[in-house]
Amino acid sequence: MVTKKWILLNNEIMVKNDDEFSLGKDKDAVRSYFLDYVNKNTVFFYTLKEKIDYLIEQEYYIDFYQWYTFEQMQEVYDMVYAKKFRFQSFMSAFKFFQSYALRDDSGEKFLERYEDRVVAVSLFLARGDVKQAREYAEMLINQEYQPATPTFLNSGKKRSGELVSCFLDEIGDNLNGIGYAIDSAMKLSSIGGGVSFNLSKIRARGESIKDVEGRAGGVLPIMKILEDTFSYANQLGQRPGAGAVYLNVFHTDIEEFLDCKKINVDEKVRIKSLSIGVVVPDKFMELAEKDEACYLFHPHTVLKQYGKYLDEMDMDEMYEELVTNPAVKKKKVNARHLMVKIAQTQKESGYPYLFFKGNANRSHALKDIGNVKFSNLCTEIMQISDVSDIEIYGTEDKIRYGISCNLGSLNIATVMDNKRIREAVKTAMRSLTIVSDITNIAMVPSVQKANKELHSVGLGAMNLHGFLAKNFIMYESKEALDFCNVFFMMVNFYSLQSSMEIARERKETFVGFKASEYANGNYFTQYIAKDIVPVNEKIAALFEGVEIPTAADWTQLMNDVKEHGIFHAYRLAIAPNQSTSYIMNATASVMPVVDVIEVREYGDSTTYYPMPYLNNDNYFFYKSAYDMDQKNVLRLISVIQKHVDQGISTILHTNTKDTTRDIAKYYIYAHKMGLKSLYYTRTRKAGIDECVSCSV
Amino acid sequence: MVTKKWILLNNEIMVKNDDEFSLGKDKDAVRSYFLDYVNKNTVFFYTLKEKIDYLIEQEYYIDFYQWYTFEQMQEVYDMVYAKKFRFQSFMSAFKFFQSYALRDDSGEKFLERYEDRVVAVSLFLARGDVKQAREYAEMLINQEYQPATPTFLNSGKKRSGELVSCFLDEIGDNLNGIGYAIDSAMKLSSIGGGVSFNLSKIRARGESIKDVEGRAGGVLPIMKILEDTFSYANQLGQRPGAGAVYLNVFHTDIEEFLDCKKINVDEKVRIKSLSIGVVVPDKFMELAEKDEACYLFHPHTVLKQYGKYLDEMDMDEMYEELVTNPAVKKKKVNARHLMVKIAQTQKESGYPYLFFKGNANRSHALKDIGNVKFSNLCTEIMQISDVSDIEIYGTEDKIRYGISCNLGSLNIATVMDNKRIREAVKTAMRSLTIVSDITNIAMVPSVQKANKELHSVGLGAMNLHGFLAKNFIMYESKEALDFCNVFFMMVNFYSLQSSMEIARERKETFVGFKASEYANGNYFTQYIAKDIVPVNEKIAALFEGVEIPTAADWTQLMNDVKEHGIFHAYRLAIAPNQSTSYIMNATASVMPVVDVIEVREYGDSTTYYPMPYLNNDNYFFYKSAYDMDQKNVLRLISVIQKHVDQGISTILHTNTKDTTRDIAKYYIYAHKMGLKSLYYTRTRKAGIDECVSCSV
Ligand SMILES: Nc1ncnc2c1ncn2[C@@H]1O[C@H](COP(=O)(O)OP(=O)(O)OP(=O)(O)O)[C@@H](O)[C@H]1O
Ligand SMILES: Nc1ncnc2c1ncn2[C@@H]1O[C@H](COP(=O)(O)OP(=O)(O)OP(=O)(O)O)[C@@H](O)[C@H]1O
Ligand SMILES: Nc1ncnc2c1ncn2[C@@H]1O[C@H](COP(=O)(O)OP(=O)(O)O)[C@@H](O)[C@H]1O
Ligand SMILES: Nc1ncnc2c1ncn2[C@@H]1O[C@H](COP(=O)(O)OP(=O)(O)O)[C@@H](O)[C@H]1O
Ligand SMILES: [Mg+2]
Ligand SMILES: [Mg+2]
Repeated sequence: MVTKKWILLNNEIMVKNDDEFSLGKDKDAVRSYFLDYVNKNTVFFYTLKEKIDYLIEQEYYIDFYQWYTFEQMQEVYDMVYAKKFRFQSFMSAFKFFQSYALRDDSGEKFLERYEDRVVAVSLFLARGDVKQAREYAEMLINQEYQPATPTFLNSGKKRSGELVSCFLDEIGDNLNGIGYAIDSAMKLSSIGGGVSFNLSKIRARGESIKDVEGRAGGVLPIMKILEDTFSYANQLGQRPGAGAVYLNVFHTDIEEFLDCKKINVDEKVRIKSLSIGVVVPDKFMELAEKDEACYLFHPHTVLKQYGKYLDEMDMDEMYEELVTNPAVKKKKVNARHLMVKIAQTQKESGYPYLFFKGNANRSHALKDIGNVKFSNLCTEIMQISDVSDIEIYGTEDKIRYGISCNLGSLNIATVMDNKRIREAVKTAMRSLTIVSDITNIAMVPSVQKANKELHSVGLGAMNLHGFLAKNFIMYESKEALDFCNVFFMMVNFYSLQSSMEIARERKETFVGFKASEYANGNYFTQYIAKDIVPVNEKIAALFEGVEIPTAADWTQLMNDVKEHGIFHAYRLAIAPNQSTSYIMNATASVMPVVDVIEVREYGDSTTYYPMPYLNNDNYFFYKSAYDMDQKNVLRLISVIQKHVDQGISTILHTNTKDTTRDIAKYYIYAHKMGLKSLYYTRTRKAGIDECVSCSV
Repeated sequence: MVTKKWILLNNEIMVKNDDEFSLGKDKDAVRSYFLDYVNKNTVFFYTLKEKIDYLIEQEYYIDFYQWYTFEQMQEVYDMVYAKKFRFQSFMSAFKFFQSYALRDDSGEKFLERYEDRVVAVSLFLARGDVKQAREYAEMLINQEYQPATPTFLNSGKKRSGELVSCFLDEIGDNLNGIGYAIDSAMKLSSIGGGVSFNLSKIRARGESIKDVEGRAGGVLPIMKILEDTFSYANQLGQRPGAGAVYLNVFHTDIEEFLDCKKINVDEKVRIKSLSIGVVVPDKFMELAEKDEACYLFHPHTVLKQYGKYLDEMDMDEMYEELVTNPAVKKKKVNARHLMVKIAQTQKESGYPYLFFKGNANRSHALKDIGNVKFSNLCTEIMQISDVSDIEIYGTEDKIRYGISCNLGSLNIATVMDNKRIREAVKTAMRSLTIVSDITNIAMVPSVQKANKELHSVGLGAMNLHGFLAKNFIMYESKEALDFCNVFFMMVNFYSLQSSMEIARERKETFVGFKASEYANGNYFTQYIAKDIVPVNEKIAALFEGVEIPTAADWTQLMNDVKEHGIFHAYRLAIAPNQSTSYIMNATASVMPVVDVIEVREYGDSTTYYPMPYLNNDNYFFYKSAYDMDQKNVLRLISVIQKHVDQGISTILHTNTKDTTRDIAKYYIYAHKMGLKSLYYTRTRKAGIDECVSCSV
């Protein structure tokens, strides 16, 4: 095997001169990647017209001529190409061409460069409004905002999946409901979304069916079917299908649910690719903290006794009642042991996610409309949902809310540098709204209903660590807390203002607005009492020239919202940006980096990815997440969480020396700090990763 | 562990006195089983009234009072109990109480004896006609006819599955169709049926999706989902869910389809509990016989070229065309090698079944209405089917024929002894018709449509070998051929007559009757030319006192059919009776026995089951299937097949010394003899089985 030139160049990064890595080599690697590979494999067109016409005629693109004249399109292309965009690292370019650039049907040749994708997305989302298209294109080519993978990948393509990242749904405890869920899983996965189901309503293994005891199979066999379904229905090779399931910690199947992720468990019950999450009510945290006994309940006996699903009960209120009711079958365990078992499973497999149900609902602006019951594949989506009644074929179903959410992320560094927070948030909100408008998941009506009535979006952010490091601020510092408090308050403000403006323009709010905390003003309490401003000078300097909304502005906004309503039931959610952050040359999400130089294996070659803005002067600011006190990270997230209506994908980084009890303590801390969820747990193992970090 | 008394007694069968087994001990075992176990665990009722009322009130039985007075029911119970039914072997009683007798919800106590089940089935199927109920009850308690498991198990129960054994459906090559199939699989499996799907229309692995090459996953991942679905949805613990899938031998996925059954194949692709079958068109047999090259085709390229599924093509007509059309992607293999690979897979795993499509369609009475495309879990069902167009949610589907078939079997020995072939066939046909009437599988509309319009049933037969042995006739003899020819001609005659009578009474035929070979008289050609009578004296003697329909009777029947039509699109199918033959103390189906004394392991005890009617004088006639020339077996089946409109579950019994080429030769012979299918292949291994047989 001959190693490719650009890989060799990229690998030279690791060659040390005077004790410093040769970071500059990465630029040579990108250059070579283009000259020696990309350009050679890109289809050549004589003119822009020829290219556009070819792509439309060959059914790669939709017919943009329905909306734009050629001249209008040219104007957008020219603006974008004039920016002379250059990928900042080999990995960014590689990731884009590997996963996002349009290829011909043989898969061998590229039909798009980055600029072309940016324009296609912009033209598509602007639906014929050329001014809007320019605005989108400018924001995208500036890398101020990045739509999530499905939107970025599929926009403008004739044969493509949908634009939405996330789907969630409840499963009713009956065969019709389970069949509906499996069918939905397959279809949603095939159109490009990650899908998550709440299994908490399914009766436990051994419960009665038709009153005959011992018949039910419980949640595990359903997980097996879902796992197979997700691995079948992929996104036509561009992303593997991905799914998650959640189970309430008080469900008697919880222990086997956790065990299915163990590596040395029997093949028949092992769950490999399906992600799992646990729904954790406050009551459980209380019992664990007090180190008390904890009862797990057979959900079907609960339903029979109270006519209500265990998963829909307020456990603070009902727990004692369930414990004392002899008709409710239960199993006694020790709460702390169960928590340690969760930590143990996380240590072994990274899973389960934790969804802190109490926290998610305490600050929930739609609390009088419904509850947040579970979360998604990356634990950032938190919206109301309700199980549909699926009837037999030919009988009308009662369809209730599933969840559909389209995502996108601001690039903190570029919006701060360009002093365009306000513009970027508003333009991003417009683009997310368009995605919601044009999404119509008719194949899964519960998801369709949610999208149609609630218009939920999830604007997030990336490059927090990169931005801080670039400005010589430590991630764990007070300055960082200060920055986040102001920045995310602003994101909240402008997204809310944008949502209000859209509602005003369209004379339409999300369904249920009147019963929300937005309508009665409660939502604004934290903002109208006093101004939020940078307390730290360094941070104040970063915001120089930027107008920061004051308490008065918030009061004005509150009144506007009361008058016009808002369009989106949910607006903000911080996703992990597992894929998109590479293209943006940004650190992912609001998490700290793991390595200063990330090592990635692709096929049989190793590549290196120096963190954004890394140079030989700012090394120190790229402290690895593994070397941080996780409590500092959780504290920073808790500050951001105050301004985010949904959730934040939060990864715990632990070291092999951390015990399961240490991890359990982080759970308790995270819960105390008001976090709504914990995404997976990573454990650093000795190996290449560590070597790189150490050698810095 | 203390071995139970009845087991010990049963085991004493194997103790030899004067070189003879102690067969009489089995009677002692049954007795002990009742006295020491069954009776002690049967709920006691003071009166019949108390029993009936309890069962109805506690929702074990449906409310029989809607149809009968207590006195009417009592009359049927009295008649049945007066027969003083006694199980003839321990295994029969054991099987009944193990799997069929109604238990209380705790699962610990019996609520029914055999007589009670017989009455419940009869009352249920007679729907208030007490005379009919008596007729059913008499036939059942005489053990002249045995409904298939779902009917026998579920009739009369309030909380139960359906009464139908068999469901089949096509799968369209799109996500909606696949989702529909998985949902159907789950629902049909949960109501008690074995389910079979034809996967031949699914595009092969690596074919294009939305014109992008290399994207399709092929049939294997769909099989994985189906396997998990069947193992999830069982028949509430009473029978495990069971499913089969068929694939056309010309489909390019055929090799991996076979490999999935290999024992040492990767866990990810291994298919354990799902049964597999191969659809074998005549063309393939021709290529294999001539030892020629054989092309496998990418089905999606075929569909794109001809607008027709590969699986729906007449391969005799289209094969050369497909070979020469360069737009059809293909793969060259050697036909004989592929056949040997099939044999090899059978030797290793028993699978695949073979469905000889040419034979099944050559004599098909509905040939102008449609084709038989595949078969079921036991390869005896052969009916038309057509793929439904399943649309997205909320859009009307185009539902076409699935297959639904309810089964039952005559007991050849008792109907011959009682000289009641005619009565039994007619009463059986009535009871099967009722099952078809009351079956309404609304949850799977394609299956519902088939049942509603075609009313197909499958009357079979069991105890052929037992009957022959009892009468000192060798299974492989000419006499056996003679007997079967006459007997099954009669079954065909009376079932057809019954179907005509029902059509006449109801003034309703199956949909499409007018276009069938019944309507134009072609079906009767083989019968009206000359009388079918026993040629052998011994056989003639067995039929003494029995009126055998003559060519003239057939001509009369033909005319009646032309005038009134027939009610059932399909009438006869010979199932394997894997479970029900035990209760009847009958040899299974029309197959030869495997052992004179069958050895069965239940939990941690070994039990022995001497073949029906076995005594120390007739040993010789219980020659094991493994010791027979399989061609003799196939020849006998071919004689029966002439009188059966659907198929016959035919098992090949081979020995370790038989090579895969030997097995392939049986395929060719079976195909030549007009068999429509081959069920699995069993290979005798050295072990207990053999010891018992040898020691006889
Ligand atoms: N996302 C997917 N993942 C895996 N298999 C898929 C996916 N989408 C479709 N398939 C498979 O491809 C075949 C065609 O499916 P379907 O007809 O639903 O797709 P389509 O969008 O109409 O594409 P085509 O025009 O190629 O038929 C089916 O076998 C289906 O199972
Ligand atoms: N045949 C079956 N095999 C496995 N699980 C089943 C089966 N039937 C039902 N279940 C499971 O039992 C639960 C109840 O299913 P469903 O509501 O469809 O049944 P039901 O007939 O209404 O019984 P119940 O009255 O107990 O609800 C679900 O979790 C379902 O998946
Ligand atoms: N492999 C995947 N397939 C489908 N959906 C996914 C996958 N990975 C993530 N998602 C969905 O996309 C959302 C955003 O995840 P993120 O890692 O930020 O994606 P990206 O950076 O690719 O846009 C997740 O919450 C999840 O619902
Ligand atoms: N385990 C099973 N679960 C569901 N259906 C089955 C199962 N075994 C067999 N069947 C169905 O019943 C039909 C008859 O099979 P057979 O062995 O004669 O059953 P039985 O003797 O129990 O009535 C088969 O063709 C198949 O469709
Ligand atoms: Mg139910
Ligand atoms: Mg299609």
